[in-house]
Amino acid sequence: MSAKKIGFVGLGAMGLPMAINLARKQFHVAGFDLREEALAALVEAGGHRAVSAAEAASGADVLVLMVVNAAQAEAVLFAARAAETLPKGATVVLMATAAPAQVAAIAQRLAALGLDFVDAPVSGGTKGATAGALTIMAAAPKATIERVRPVLESLGDKLFHVGETPGQGAAVKTVNQLLCGVHIAALAEAMAMAEKAGLDGKLMLQILGGSAASSWMLHDRGPRMLEAEPVVSSAVDIFVKDLGIVLDAGRAAKLALPLSAAAHQMFLAASGMGLGGKDDSHVVEAYRVLAGRPPT
Amino acid sequence: MSAKKIGFVGLGAMGLPMAINLARKQFHVAGFDLREEALAALVEAGGHRAVSAAEAASGADVLVLMVVNAAQAEAVLFAARAAETLPKGATVVLMATAAPAQVAAIAQRLAALGLDFVDAPVSGGTKGATAGALTIMAAAPKATIERVRPVLESLGDKLFHVGETPGQGAAVKTVNQLLCGVHIAALAEAMAMAEKAGLDGKLMLQILGGSAASSWMLHDRGPRMLEAEPVVSSAVDIFVKDLGIVLDAGRAAKLALPLSAAAHQMFLAASGMGLGGKDDSHVVEAYRVLAGRPPT
Repeated sequence: MSAKKIGFVGLGAMGLPMAINLARKQFHVAGFDLREEALAALVEAGGHRAVSAAEAASGADVLVLMVVNAAQAEAVLFAARAAETLPKGATVVLMATAAPAQVAAIAQRLAALGLDFVDAPVSGGTKGATAGALTIMAAAPKATIERVRPVLESLGDKLFHVGETPGQGAAVKTVNQLLCGVHIAALAEAMAMAEKAGLDGKLMLQILGGSAASSWMLHDRGPRMLEAEPVVSSAVDIFVKDLGIVLDAGRAAKLALPLSAAAHQMFLAASGMGLGGKDDSHVVEAYRVLAGRPPT
Repeated sequence: MSAKKIGFVGLGAMGLPMAINLARKQFHVAGFDLREEALAALVEAGGHRAVSAAEAASGADVLVLMVVNAAQAEAVLFAARAAETLPKGATVVLMATAAPAQVAAIAQRLAALGLDFVDAPVSGGTKGATAGALTIMAAAPKATIERVRPVLESLGDKLFHVGETPGQGAAVKTVNQLLCGVHIAALAEAMAMAEKAGLDGKLMLQILGGSAASSWMLHDRGPRMLEAEPVVSSAVDIFVKDLGIVLDAGRAAKLALPLSAAAHQMFLAASGMGLGGKDDSHVVEAYRVLAGRPPT
């Protein structure tokens, strides 16, 4: 039995292109979001408009949640009654980034209602979402994964089954964000040191990018660290949040994460400088101020 | 005028294959090292044996130093009198990893003796040294670089002229080592978190290595973190030293380097656990002990 009717809640920068991809794959997609223009865009792509989260869930085989965090997922499922509206045996797929313990708690409440659950956070950004080329880190019993496989494979081209237990998908995403955040802050630390030594930024990126010092983030964020006003690809405050989730997960597991903690402080400092909405490459500004340049 | 006669001091894991490459390129190479077998290997490759650093320097157009650190370079140049033995107008090329301030001090003493100096640390490891494929980060006036270019291009295939001032080559290398060391420690932190969550290490490396979390170090050191006794490619104590140089340079420049400092503590902890001579991927063992696994 493969899923035919899909409810989709959260039609933001990620969720809207994901829901559109499902609609184009001939799924019946009932989407809900508070933003009218997102609903209109989904309808134009062949999807359907729901007037509430509960209506999106009504009669659905699968309910996909691409909301901002675990608190919003809980609000949709329980306060807005989407969970109790879903048919018995339906599957909830949570694709938002959330802390592993929060995801496990949501799964437990859904199980009590006779609902299946897939913990399936993603990486790949809006580009991957639009192209149907997300990386999906899915945790659930194998039979549950198989039931929603056609849905997941319409959204991503790299589907990893990382474990049987809800929260393990979130744990993989958390570890992923740990490295992403630390790599951006480490690059900022390195570039601030290079600038203080009077070295040319572009030449530094060329040298480091071709050596053992290289990283995906160096090639992506490095050039933006040399721009005064880079386009915002992902904001400083996203890593204030995501490294916060990393540290919360570490605290829950009684696990010391000294580099993540130091990196988080630098994103916090950048946010405290008023740069929370700027591109996350701007964490280098916090280092520059520490290096003696007056704040702009 | 291109260099014909080269003195080469320091025929270790890096220096020996570098000196052999020069001998094979038809330079006259007089090598010196305390290890007899290294001298024999150089002679077999067409080089010449010197009985002291001063003899290696005698009549040389270029004296290359590939010793362990700045203290050894000073000992060779000044205590062992290689500098005063060099002909006036000869060029000293320091390729060892040293702190920028130490390199600048050596350059100043050599200038007082009428000698030119190129600050030219390398990256690429023994593999790059053997293949003549090192990355060379050279700082010196342009004319000096041009004079030794044939020598440098026999040793590396990526020659960057990073500045005019001695110490700037060392600064680039320092920034490079900052990222290398932080990336290894960050990966260890990530893998320890994944293990604590019960996630499969190989699968984690596959997921992270194909995402924005990827780094050169993840692909190189990651698999070794999953081995009990990996071959020693570079030892834990090398990063105790190199991140120590990074932090010394930061201190000299009054520059806070919070991630480097945290990473250094983890390499120190691994060394304190008795793992200083093990492969640097073993820094993950320090995290594992912090995560609650009894020390082995």
